[in-house]
Amino acid sequence: MTQSHPSLSLDDTVHQRVRLGILAVLAEADQADFSYLKDVLDLTDGNLSRHLRVLEDAGYIRIDKGYEGRKPRTWVKATREGRRAFAGHLAALQELIDKATANKGKEQV
Amino acid sequence: MTQSHPSLSLDDTVHQRVRLGILAVLAEADQADFSYLKDVLDLTDGNLSRHLRVLEDAGYIRIDKGYEGRKPRTWVKATREGRRAFAGHLAALQELIDKATANKGKEQV
Repeated sequence: MTQSHPSLSLDDTVHQRVRLGILAVLAEADQADFSYLKDVLDLTDGNLSRHLRVLEDAGYIRIDKGYEGRKPRTWVKATREGRRAFAGHLAALQELIDKATANKGKEQV
Repeated sequence: MTQSHPSLSLDDTVHQRVRLGILAVLAEADQADFSYLKDVLDLTDGNLSRHLRVLEDAGYIRIDKGYEGRKPRTWVKATREGRRAFAGHLAALQELIDKATANKGKEQV
């Protein structure tokens, strides 16, 4: 009777608001450091750490701890798999948007 | 130092995968019945009910119980506020997609 809906292609690992934000920032940069992510996404240390762990467990990001001079830095980078999952997710969201927009147009006719 | 990210405009009431699906279906139709939503979004009764309650509490949908002949039917309809929240959410998602896609293009140059 019914076709499967584009929302069924959305993976919660990527879709969750904060994680979608993290992957979006990492799609725009080669790597980002922990403080930058915290700042741009307006998160606490604990909240960012928790979501990074979910993404790391899924194999979507890699975390490298190191030093810049004497200052400790935590670098976060999307893996190839993470970039692929994010790109696929954006495609599913675009499909959902296009479908909702197209059908809304139809109703107005 | 940093600009606020489009993911910060995403409201979890709308963004959550199942609820985004419900509002997308309701954007395409004047109203949908409970069984149709359950079917098209591949949900259990309990799961659909739980998410409908969140949307109803937010004022984004209205639920009308009635009969079609002798068959009980539960109709779900997006409110004006719900349609506005969904449209605003799609705009934020589109901004996030466009930003991620544009900047990815830049990196490749």
